[in-house]
Amino acid sequence: MRQESDALGARSLPEGTLYGIHTARAADNFPVSGQRVMPELIAAYAWVKAACALANQDTGHLDAKRASAIVAACREVAQGQHSEQFVVDAYQGGAGTSTNMNVNEVVANRALQLLGHTPGAYDILSPLAHVNLHQSTNDTYPTALRVAALGLLKELEGTTARLQEALQAKEAAFAQVVKVGRTELMDAVPMTLGMTFGAYAEAVSRDRWRIFKCRERIKQVPLGGTAVGTGLGAPRAYIFKAAEHLRHLTGLPVSRAENLVDATANADAFVEVSGILSAYAANLLKIASDLRLLASGPFTGLGEIVLPALQAGSSIMPGKVNPVIPECVGQAALRVMGNHQTVTLTAGLGQLEINQYMPLLAHSLLESLRLLRDASAVFADKCIIGITADEERCQELVAKSQALATVLVPALGYETVARLLAASRKAGRTLAAHMAATGVLAEADAAGLLAPKRMRKLGFEEEDYECLRRQGEAREEEEASGGRGDDPPGPPDGEKF
Amino acid sequence: MRQESDALGARSLPEGTLYGIHTARAADNFPVSGQRVMPELIAAYAWVKAACALANQDTGHLDAKRASAIVAACREVAQGQHSEQFVVDAYQGGAGTSTNMNVNEVVANRALQLLGHTPGAYDILSPLAHVNLHQSTNDTYPTALRVAALGLLKELEGTTARLQEALQAKEAAFAQVVKVGRTELMDAVPMTLGMTFGAYAEAVSRDRWRIFKCRERIKQVPLGGTAVGTGLGAPRAYIFKAAEHLRHLTGLPVSRAENLVDATANADAFVEVSGILSAYAANLLKIASDLRLLASGPFTGLGEIVLPALQAGSSIMPGKVNPVIPECVGQAALRVMGNHQTVTLTAGLGQLEINQYMPLLAHSLLESLRLLRDASAVFADKCIIGITADEERCQELVAKSQALATVLVPALGYETVARLLAASRKAGRTLAAHMAATGVLAEADAAGLLAPKRMRKLGFEEEDYECLRRQGEAREEEEASGGRGDDPPGPPDGEKF
Amino acid sequence: MRQESDALGARSLPEGTLYGIHTARAADNFPVSGQRVMPELIAAYAWVKAACALANQDTGHLDAKRASAIVAACREVAQGQHSEQFVVDAYQGGAGTSTNMNVNEVVANRALQLLGHTPGAYDILSPLAHVNLHQSTNDTYPTALRVAALGLLKELEGTTARLQEALQAKEAAFAQVVKVGRTELMDAVPMTLGMTFGAYAEAVSRDRWRIFKCRERIKQVPLGGTAVGTGLGAPRAYIFKAAEHLRHLTGLPVSRAENLVDATANADAFVEVSGILSAYAANLLKIASDLRLLASGPFTGLGEIVLPALQAGSSIMPGKVNPVIPECVGQAALRVMGNHQTVTLTAGLGQLEINQYMPLLAHSLLESLRLLRDASAVFADKCIIGITADEERCQELVAKSQALATVLVPALGYETVARLLAASRKAGRTLAAHMAATGVLAEADAAGLLAPKRMRKLGFEEEDYECLRRQGEAREEEEASGGRGDDPPGPPDGEKF
Amino acid sequence: MRQESDALGARSLPEGTLYGIHTARAADNFPVSGQRVMPELIAAYAWVKAACALANQDTGHLDAKRASAIVAACREVAQGQHSEQFVVDAYQGGAGTSTNMNVNEVVANRALQLLGHTPGAYDILSPLAHVNLHQSTNDTYPTALRVAALGLLKELEGTTARLQEALQAKEAAFAQVVKVGRTELMDAVPMTLGMTFGAYAEAVSRDRWRIFKCRERIKQVPLGGTAVGTGLGAPRAYIFKAAEHLRHLTGLPVSRAENLVDATANADAFVEVSGILSAYAANLLKIASDLRLLASGPFTGLGEIVLPALQAGSSIMPGKVNPVIPECVGQAALRVMGNHQTVTLTAGLGQLEINQYMPLLAHSLLESLRLLRDASAVFADKCIIGITADEERCQELVAKSQALATVLVPALGYETVARLLAASRKAGRTLAAHMAATGVLAEADAAGLLAPKRMRKLGFEEEDYECLRRQGEAREEEEASGGRGDDPPGPPDGEKF
Repeated sequence: MRQESDALGARSLPEGTLYGIHTARAADNFPVSGQRVMPELIAAYAWVKAACALANQDTGHLDAKRASAIVAACREVAQGQHSEQFVVDAYQGGAGTSTNMNVNEVVANRALQLLGHTPGAYDILSPLAHVNLHQSTNDTYPTALRVAALGLLKELEGTTARLQEALQAKEAAFAQVVKVGRTELMDAVPMTLGMTFGAYAEAVSRDRWRIFKCRERIKQVPLGGTAVGTGLGAPRAYIFKAAEHLRHLTGLPVSRAENLVDATANADAFVEVSGILSAYAANLLKIASDLRLLASGPFTGLGEIVLPALQAGSSIMPGKVNPVIPECVGQAALRVMGNHQTVTLTAGLGQLEINQYMPLLAHSLLESLRLLRDASAVFADKCIIGITADEERCQELVAKSQALATVLVPALGYETVARLLAASRKAGRTLAAHMAATGVLAEADAAGLLAPKRMRKLGFEEEDYECLRRQGEAREEEEASGGRGDDPPGPPDGEKF
Repeated sequence: MRQESDALGARSLPEGTLYGIHTARAADNFPVSGQRVMPELIAAYAWVKAACALANQDTGHLDAKRASAIVAACREVAQGQHSEQFVVDAYQGGAGTSTNMNVNEVVANRALQLLGHTPGAYDILSPLAHVNLHQSTNDTYPTALRVAALGLLKELEGTTARLQEALQAKEAAFAQVVKVGRTELMDAVPMTLGMTFGAYAEAVSRDRWRIFKCRERIKQVPLGGTAVGTGLGAPRAYIFKAAEHLRHLTGLPVSRAENLVDATANADAFVEVSGILSAYAANLLKIASDLRLLASGPFTGLGEIVLPALQAGSSIMPGKVNPVIPECVGQAALRVMGNHQTVTLTAGLGQLEINQYMPLLAHSLLESLRLLRDASAVFADKCIIGITADEERCQELVAKSQALATVLVPALGYETVARLLAASRKAGRTLAAHMAATGVLAEADAAGLLAPKRMRKLGFEEEDYECLRRQGEAREEEEASGGRGDDPPGPPDGEKF
Repeated sequence: MRQESDALGARSLPEGTLYGIHTARAADNFPVSGQRVMPELIAAYAWVKAACALANQDTGHLDAKRASAIVAACREVAQGQHSEQFVVDAYQGGAGTSTNMNVNEVVANRALQLLGHTPGAYDILSPLAHVNLHQSTNDTYPTALRVAALGLLKELEGTTARLQEALQAKEAAFAQVVKVGRTELMDAVPMTLGMTFGAYAEAVSRDRWRIFKCRERIKQVPLGGTAVGTGLGAPRAYIFKAAEHLRHLTGLPVSRAENLVDATANADAFVEVSGILSAYAANLLKIASDLRLLASGPFTGLGEIVLPALQAGSSIMPGKVNPVIPECVGQAALRVMGNHQTVTLTAGLGQLEINQYMPLLAHSLLESLRLLRDASAVFADKCIIGITADEERCQELVAKSQALATVLVPALGYETVARLLAASRKAGRTLAAHMAATGVLAEADAAGLLAPKRMRKLGFEEEDYECLRRQGEAREEEEASGGRGDDPPGPPDGEKF
Repeated sequence: MRQESDALGARSLPEGTLYGIHTARAADNFPVSGQRVMPELIAAYAWVKAACALANQDTGHLDAKRASAIVAACREVAQGQHSEQFVVDAYQGGAGTSTNMNVNEVVANRALQLLGHTPGAYDILSPLAHVNLHQSTNDTYPTALRVAALGLLKELEGTTARLQEALQAKEAAFAQVVKVGRTELMDAVPMTLGMTFGAYAEAVSRDRWRIFKCRERIKQVPLGGTAVGTGLGAPRAYIFKAAEHLRHLTGLPVSRAENLVDATANADAFVEVSGILSAYAANLLKIASDLRLLASGPFTGLGEIVLPALQAGSSIMPGKVNPVIPECVGQAALRVMGNHQTVTLTAGLGQLEINQYMPLLAHSLLESLRLLRDASAVFADKCIIGITADEERCQELVAKSQALATVLVPALGYETVARLLAASRKAGRTLAAHMAATGVLAEADAAGLLAPKRMRKLGFEEEDYECLRRQGEAREEEEASGGRGDDPPGPPDGEKF
C-alpha cells in the first residue's frame, strides 16, 4: 500500500494501482450505475493530455524528459492499455473532474514507471503540476468528448455505408419482383420489391451524408480556455499550440474554437449531432419493422421476403425462426431516441459557465454512436445481405389483390373498372382472366401492364394503354361481324383521359 | 341543408358550408383533441392544390375555366379566408386523407361559388375529379407539410436573427462589466458580463445558421408520386409540371424528389429538422435559466442583472416582479424537446409505403416551429433588449470572491496565494487591500489585473504580471534599506513561470 | 374604453371586457403558442375562487353581498360562460399568476355587473382585495389544477369502462373463433380470437382501476398556504374553511394537505397520475396497432378481423377503407407518452418554494386526460363495437399453419410430429388429412384437439389425448389383423408423457 | 473444444464453457451494445428454472436426481456464480429467447458437472428437454423480470426510507433557522430551513409509499402459460405448481396471473412501475437542484447551507469544492426519466401475443431501479446527513430582504407597510430598526413576528399582531402626553383585519 494525500486528508492505495487519491475518492463517491466511462472517451482524453504536454514542452513549461514520458503513457492509455485503472462511475458528479483526474493520475503514474520511478512519486512528476498543467476539466473534458465523438462518427459512417450498399444490392436484385404496395397496412397499388429496398437505401444514404457532415459541427474544441473559456492561468503561447498538437496526434480535423467561453459552456453542438442520430434511428426502426412485417409467416403472414435464419427461435415450436436481427436493431434505435432526449435535456440544463451534467451527456451520446455503428454493421451483414424474395408469394398476392384494377383506372375510369371487377368475382375468375375471356384485354397485355418496367416509369403515357385500344378495336370488329358480346365494358366514363 | 353522398351513403350539410361529406364524416370520426389542423398546413395545402390545377391545365387535363376558379379559391384559402371551414381534428386517422379532402371540398365549393354555382354542384366541379385530379393524399400531404415547414423556417430564421442581435448588443454594452464566473454554481474565476452574453449570442448564431441550412433538407417534395411514389394514375407530363408550379406559386425552393417512393414513405428529413430545433431549444432553455438565476433577488439572490418588469408578480408581496419571459421561453423550449420525441417516433413508426401517423408528426413539427419563432421574438423584444447590468453588485461580488487570488496564481503559485489569502482574512481586509498594505501589489495594479481587457485576452503573457515584479523589486530595495517587513510573500514556488 | 392602472402604469381596455389590466398585459407578454388555457382549468379555478369567497364570508372578511356576487360570477365562469375572456396564452410565464389574475378580473367584473355596476369599479369590488383575498397564485393554481384533473379523471374512468366493456363483448362474441397466435410476428400456436380481445379487456381493466385509484393521489390541495405554504397573510380560521367549501362546491373528494409547504412546491403527484396515463397509452397503442395488423388486407394482409368502415380511404383506389380510428387512437397515445415526459421534467425542474413551469405541466397533463378520455370513447364506440371476425379466414390460416402439429407435440413428441409433417407435405395434403388417411388420428378427433374449449383450458391433461391412444390401439389391432400399414408413427419419443 | 449442434448445424465450444451452442450463436448475433444482461435478471431467471424443475418433479415429469441437480445449479447462478457465462448482449433480438437459452445451457451444464458428467452430455440432462421442460421464453422471461423487479423494488424501498429519514433529521435540526423563501427565484416570504427539508421529506415519503405499493402491480406472473398464455404443451398439474414453488424459493409474493394470455402479451404493469419511478426521479432532480442552489457560493452565491466536501473540485481554483453528489443524483434522475420513455414505448410497441422488445424494456426498467436504489443511498449517506446550515447567512439575508414587511402586511395593510419601507430606506436603516426608532414596533416584537414558531403556525390569528396594537396604544398615550411624533403609521387601510 502507498499513501497519498489531498486537501481532504490522506488515504492508502494498493501498491500497484496507477490511479491515485482523487480517483479513489471518486470511485467511492459515485457507486450508482456500475457502468464505467466509455473507453472511447478515456482514449480521447489521453490524446488531449499528450497534446497539452507537447504544447507545454514547446513553450518551455515542461522539460523534454517529462513530456516524453507523459506522451508515451498517454499513447498506452489511448490504445486501451490500463483500462482496468479507469474505475470512476459514468454517472459521476463534478462535470467530469473525476475522469480528468483519473486520466491525470494514471498517466502520471504510468509515466513515472516509464521513467523508472514508482507510482506516487509526484514530486518528480505530478498529475496536477505536470499532466494537468495549464488545463481545467472544463476545457479538456468537452475537448475529449469531441475527439471521441469524431472518431466514432468516422466509424459510424463506415458501417452506414455498408448498410446502404447492402440495401442497394437488394434494390438491384429485386428489381423484377412485382408486389402489392400497402398504405396504412391496406392493399394499395402495385410496385416492385426493388423499389421498397431502393427507398430504404435512399433514406440510409441521407443518413450517411448527414453523419459525414456532422463532423464539422463538433470539430471546434475549447482547449486552452481553462475554467470558463478566458484561458485564465494558461500562457497565451501554449493555448495556440495545444489544439494544433491534438490535430496531429489524432489525425482528426480539430481546431480551436473562436469563442472559448461559448465552447466551454454550451453543448448545443452535441444536441445537433444527437439529433442527426435520432433521424437515423427513425429510419432504422422503420426499415427493421417493415422487414419483420414483410417476412412474417411462414404460413399465415405476409411472407413476401425471407430473412436469414440465425438461431433457433423456440423450444416449443420446432423450426420456428424469428427476425432477431431486426428486433435487435429496433431496440438499438429506440435507445438512441431515448438518448437524444437525455442529451437535449442535459445540454439545456447546463448552468452559467459550464454544464454540470456533461458526464451523462457524454455517456448518452457515445452510447448512441456505438449502438448505431454496431447495429448498422450487424443489420447489413447478418440480415440484409441474406434476404431473399419469395417471388411466388409476391405474385400470388398481386393476383389476389386489385392491383390490375388500379392500373386500369386511368384508362377505363373508376366505374368501368368497378363493373369489371364485380363481374369477374361473379364469374369466379381473376380480373385478368375475366378480361381475357371477355376480350377486353389479352392476358399478355394484362401482364404487360403489371410489368416491373411499368412500375419503375414515373406516371403513365397514353401509349402505355395502347393495348386496351387495340383490343377494343378488335372487339368492335368482331362484334360488327356478329361475334361474342358478353359484358363489354361500357363507354369509358368522363374521368379517363 | 344540402345533400351529399359517398360510398358510405348520403348525409345532409348546412347550406352555407364549403366543406362536404368527407369532411363532415371526418369531423365526426375524430373528436379527440379539440385542436384543429395548423393554419400553415392548410395554407400550404392550398398552394399544392393550385399547383396541381395549373399542371393539369398545362397538360390538357383541366380546362382553363375550372383551373382558374380552383386557383382563385386556393389563393383565398392560402390567405387564411374560410379558416372556419377546416374543422377536422389535428389527431385524425387516415394519414391526412381527411385534411386533403377538407381542402378539396372547400376549394371545390368555393370555386363553384366563384363560377356562380352553389356548393355541392360537383357535376360541374368536383373535389375528387377536378381539385384532387391526379393526386393522392400520400404525395400531396407530405408536400404540403414541407411547404408549410419551409415557410415557418424562413420566419423562424428571422426571429432567431433578432435574438442573436439583441444578445450581441448586450455583449457590447456589458463589455466592461467584470463579474464572477461560476462553474457548478460555485464561484470560479473572473470574466466579463459581456462574455456571458457573447457566449449566448454565439450559440444562437449557430442555431440561426442551422435553421437556415435546414431548408435544404426538406425542399424535395414527392408531388406527383400519387399513392406510393410510382406516379400510378398520374400522367407523366403532369408530374413534371406540378412541382415547378408549386415553386413559382410559393416562392420557396421546392423541387421534385428523385426517388418518390422514398419521399412518400420516409419522414427522416422532418426528424432532422426537428433535431435542429431541439438544439435551439436546449440553447433557449439554458439562456433563459441563466438569466433567471443572474437576475435572482432583488435582495437575497445573485442580482447581477435586472430584467425588464412586464407585469406585477404577486398580489401578496408588493413590488414583486418575476422573470416571466424567460419562464415562458423555457416552457416553449421544453415543449419543443417533447415534440422532437414525438416527431422521431412517428417517423420511426411509419409502415411500408407511407406513414400513418403523419398528422401527428405534422402537428408536432409545426407547433415546434411556431413556438420557437414566437418565443424567439418575445425573448428578444420583451426581455433581452431591456436587460441592465447591476455593475455595483457585480463589483461587490468580485470583491467578496477570490477572483483576484485565482488571477494571481499563475504568477505567485498556489501556495503563496493561499498564504496571502489566509493572512488577509486574519487581518480582516480584502486581498487587494492586504496586498497593498503589505506592499506586494499596489491597489491600482490589482485593479489592472482584473480589468475587462485582461479578461478578454486569451491566456496570459509574462508582461501581464510585470507589476508584481516591479513591486517586488521596490519592496526588496525598501527592505535592503531597512524598511517595513510584515508578511512578505515567500519565494514563488515552482509552478510560477 | 375604460382605464385601469397597476404598478407599471395605466392602460385602456375596451369597454365591454371583463378581464382587466393584468390580463391585458399578460396577453401581450406571451404571444407564443396561440393555445389558450384549458377550459377545465378555468372552470376549476372559478370553483376555487368561490370556495375562498365563502370561507372569507364565514370568517367575517367578506360581506355577504360581495361574497354572493363573487360566487354567482364564479358559477357562470365554471359553466363555461365568458370563455372568450380567458385570453392568456397557455405557455405563460409567472407560474400561473396571469391565469389567476385573469380569473380574478373576470370574476370581479362580472360580479360588479351582477351588482349593477360597470366593470372596473374596483373600489366597490376588487380582483385583488376581494376575489383574491387571502390567496396567492401559489396555493390556488395547484389547487385548481388538482380539481380540474380530478374532474377529468372521473370522466376518463367512464370512457375507459366503456372501452373495457366493448372489448369484453368481443371476447364473448369471438370465443369460438380459433385462430393462429403469433409471436414476433411469426406463426406460433393456436388460440381463440376471444382470448385476444380478452387480453385487451384485461389490460384496460387494469387501466380503469389505476385511473380510479389516481384520484386519491391528487385530492390533497395546498389551498390556504398562500405564497410558500406557511399561510402567511391568511387568517387561520379562513384556511380551515376554504378546502371544505371547495369539496362541497365541486362534489370532489378534495381535502387540505397536511404539509402545505410540500404541496405548494412539489409536483410529483401529477407525475404519478401522468405515469398512470402513460401505462394506459401503452395499452392503447398496442391494441390499436394489433387491430390494424389483424385487419390488414382486404386481400393481401392478415384479414382475420374487419373494422367498421367510417369514411372513404382513398380517391385513387376505389373501395379502400383505412383503419382510421386505431390510427387516431395511436396518435393520441403517442402524444400522451410525450406529455408524460414534459410533465416529469417540469416537475423535476421546479425550483425552491414553487414550480415556475406549472402552466406547461398543467397544459400537458390536462391535454393527456382529455385525449385519453375522448380517444377511449371514440375507440369503443366507432371501432371496437363494430368489429367482426372473418371466421373463414381464421380457419383457412389455422389450416395452413402448423397449429395442429404444435398441439400434437406434447403427446407424440417433436420428432414424430416433425416426421408426420414432412410426410404430409410430401403427400401434398394437410397434416389432419394425412393423419386421417394413415389412420393416426380421425379427422373429427383432430378437430377436437383444435376446439375452442381446448384453447381455453389451461395446459393439457392426459385424457385430452385419449383419442390418439384409442386410434393407436385400433391401428395396432388392424395391423395385427394384417391391415394397412403405411407410415405409422414411430414409437413416441422420450419427451411424450 | 467440445461440439454441439442445433437446427442450424454444428459448432465448437471451448471445453470449459457452461453455456452452449444457442448462447454462442446469440453472442455472435448481437454485438451491438457491449452491455450484458443485468445480473438481477439472470438471478431471477435461475429461480424460475428451479421452480419449474420442482414443479416438474412434483408432477412426475422429472426424476429427483435431475431435479436436484438443476435446483442446485440454479442456486449457484442465482447467487452470482458463473456470471462470466452470461455473455449475450442486453440488446438481443428474439424477445429474450437467447437469455432463456443462456440460462438453460449454463444450468444444464453446471448440473451435469454436479452429477459428475462433463458439459455437453445432453443425453443425460438437456437444456431443452429437462431445464426448459414445459416452458417457453414467453412465460418465463416476463416472470423472471417480475421477480427481478420485485427484488430491486424491495431494496429501493430500503434506500428511499434512508433518504426520507435523513431529510427528516434535517427538518428537525433546522427547525429554528428562519430563512427567505423564494418563488420563481425571487425573494418571497420568510419560512424556516426545517420546512424546506420537511417538504423534501414529505415528497420522498410519498415515493416510499408508492414504491412499496408497486410490488402489488407486478406480482402476478404468467408462468405456465408457455408460448402465448394458453399453457399449450404444459401439463395442467405442473402449471398449478410452478408459481407456488417460485414464491417459496424467492420469498417474494408472486402468484399466477388469472389471465395468462394477457400477462404474456401486455407490459403495462412495467410502465406503471416505471411511471412511479419517474415521479421519484422528478423529486430527486428537484431536491438535488435546490440543494445545489442553496449551497451555491461560497462567497457569491446563496450560501444558506453547506454540503459536505467529498473531493477536491478543481486543479486551478484552490479550495473549490463542488456539489458532486447532487450532480450525480441529478444525472441518475434524468436517466430514469429517459428510461421511462423507453419502457413506455417498448410496452406500446408489443405486437400480438408477445412483446418483441422485452429485453430493452427489462434492461431499461432494471437500470432505473438500480440507479434509484444506489443514488438514494449515496444521496442520504454522502450528502444529506452531512449538510449544515449557515445560520448567520440565513439571518443576514432575512434582514436584507423584505421578509418583515410581508409579515406586517396583514396587520398594517400594503400601503402603510410600503410607506414604512420607503421611510426606512430613506433613513438608511433596516425596517425593524426604523420601526423601533419610530416607536411602531419594539425590536423584540419584530423578532417575535419572525420567530420560527410563527412560521410553522398555519395562517395568522389576531393575537399574533397584539404587539402592534400594544405599541400603537403606547404611542398614542405618549403622543397625547406631547411625546415624539415622527412618522407615525397612518390609519391602517381597509385591507387590514
